[in-house]
Amino acid sequence: MTKVLCVGAAVVDFVFQLPDLPDRAEKYGTENAAIVGGGCAANAAVAVSRLGGQAVLGARLGDDAIGDMVVAGVEAEGVDCANVTRTPRARSSYSSVYLDQRGERQIVNFRGAGLHLDTGWFAGLQNVAAVLTDTRRVAAAEDALTMARTRGIPGVLDGEAPVDPGLVSLASHAAFSMQGLRDLAPDLGPEEALLKISAEHGCWACVTDGENGVWFTGFDGIEHCPAFPVTPVDTLGAGDVWHGAFTLALAEGQDEATAIRFACAAAALKCLKPGGREGAPSRTDTETFLKEQEA
Amino acid sequence: MTKVLCVGAAVVDFVFQLPDLPDRAEKYGTENAAIVGGGCAANAAVAVSRLGGQAVLGARLGDDAIGDMVVAGVEAEGVDCANVTRTPRARSSYSSVYLDQRGERQIVNFRGAGLHLDTGWFAGLQNVAAVLTDTRRVAAAEDALTMARTRGIPGVLDGEAPVDPGLVSLASHAAFSMQGLRDLAPDLGPEEALLKISAEHGCWACVTDGENGVWFTGFDGIEHCPAFPVTPVDTLGAGDVWHGAFTLALAEGQDEATAIRFACAAAALKCLKPGGREGAPSRTDTETFLKEQEA
Repeated sequence: MTKVLCVGAAVVDFVFQLPDLPDRAEKYGTENAAIVGGGCAANAAVAVSRLGGQAVLGARLGDDAIGDMVVAGVEAEGVDCANVTRTPRARSSYSSVYLDQRGERQIVNFRGAGLHLDTGWFAGLQNVAAVLTDTRRVAAAEDALTMARTRGIPGVLDGEAPVDPGLVSLASHAAFSMQGLRDLAPDLGPEEALLKISAEHGCWACVTDGENGVWFTGFDGIEHCPAFPVTPVDTLGAGDVWHGAFTLALAEGQDEATAIRFACAAAALKCLKPGGREGAPSRTDTETFLKEQEA
Repeated sequence: MTKVLCVGAAVVDFVFQLPDLPDRAEKYGTENAAIVGGGCAANAAVAVSRLGGQAVLGARLGDDAIGDMVVAGVEAEGVDCANVTRTPRARSSYSSVYLDQRGERQIVNFRGAGLHLDTGWFAGLQNVAAVLTDTRRVAAAEDALTMARTRGIPGVLDGEAPVDPGLVSLASHAAFSMQGLRDLAPDLGPEEALLKISAEHGCWACVTDGENGVWFTGFDGIEHCPAFPVTPVDTLGAGDVWHGAFTLALAEGQDEATAIRFACAAAALKCLKPGGREGAPSRTDTETFLKEQEA
């Protein structure tokens, strides 16, 4: 199996469904609630695992009950959590998520306390074929992208705002959200921004824009890959599935244009299912979908 | 140690502190959050334990991570959880609580699913000196109060609205909130309501009204016990501490007036500390406070 290291957030969301979002200092009740694993890195790791890769998670958790819930949820998907940092007396991050009947979402996130992401084990990790990390935990992201650079394997940065420019310089592939791209190049249109960033930081770059598809730095300037035309049921976690699938495809040796298409297919299938990472598709379903779309 | 059976709710609250209560479908972040054990019966059981009694908890939980958190929190306080019902595939109840800087509180409660409170073990419980239960889980409350009646020990009903009149008839002592009293006797003032309920249901009755104190059915009609004059820091859980302390005092053989005074002292001390059950006082602190107030 192709091994992908995913470094970043791993959390638990307590999701409550309500007719309307609460707006008073009162007590509300619901019969519909779920405890859902979340966090960009954990979600991407689950996507990699379902798509047939061996995902290794690098994340920071407390040695607490929330941390146990996070690890149990991710390990159940076959993700390797042996190196997840569990800091004694630190407190894991979690969120409360309220969903109303129109799909509006209100999130309150506890950022955690005393957390530290140990990266000393990166150097000893055998046979890693690609690395995915985010822009939040800068020191750990630097170590992950440096390891990828040293080994000559793809180092993918999930470029969400705010973006540390130093991380872009370390990444071989920077995949921005529109907001992340604007944060780094506020005065330029998307195409100019990608070209400038790619030139300045010496990396391949793309911007993902949901149903509008993906723009990326190709051989002859900016190229566009349209999104697959689906009617979304739930877009939660689609970005994380995209990043996991894209990184796995690069790790397998697919070229960027093919990897984008694979990632867009996986993200489209995720959008057809409710829930975040629970909606991540299998390899078989993704390849069948790709063939159907080509036919 | 005097043994008290507490039957009812045992939950976990995920408490998030925010400058203001959220009012938009957005993402909010906070550095201040706590995972706090809650539920009337669990809180009362912890109060009993801290006040030197042996609390036995009767509650319904799923065989899930939330259930584990509830039991761990209560057992750490010395409460006997050996008979708590853990139903496979059921889902434990939990709440998300938002607190703003003015102390306003917004709660969203997941009621749980597939839960069942087994009461078959009540009959085999040795040396119980009193029982406390609430108005929510009616069948279990009936069994608990019937057991108390059969054994001739105090059976205390925490009379929160809505109140099932059948439970009041089974209780030896009904301790209403103002709302609970109005629910049962909507057309009467508090004193008339207590006299009517006491006569009709053949039980001692009182109503607790926070800083206004407690009215109860005494030898010559309704008597009043004033609350202790404290400046509250946090009233969360004060009612549960009151019910636990009152039931323990009756179990120890204190008369009702003395038990009320003891319970009001414990509740007052709780109000001087932040947090719910964490603020429950020790026996020593409660008795010292009572002596100070008498001096």
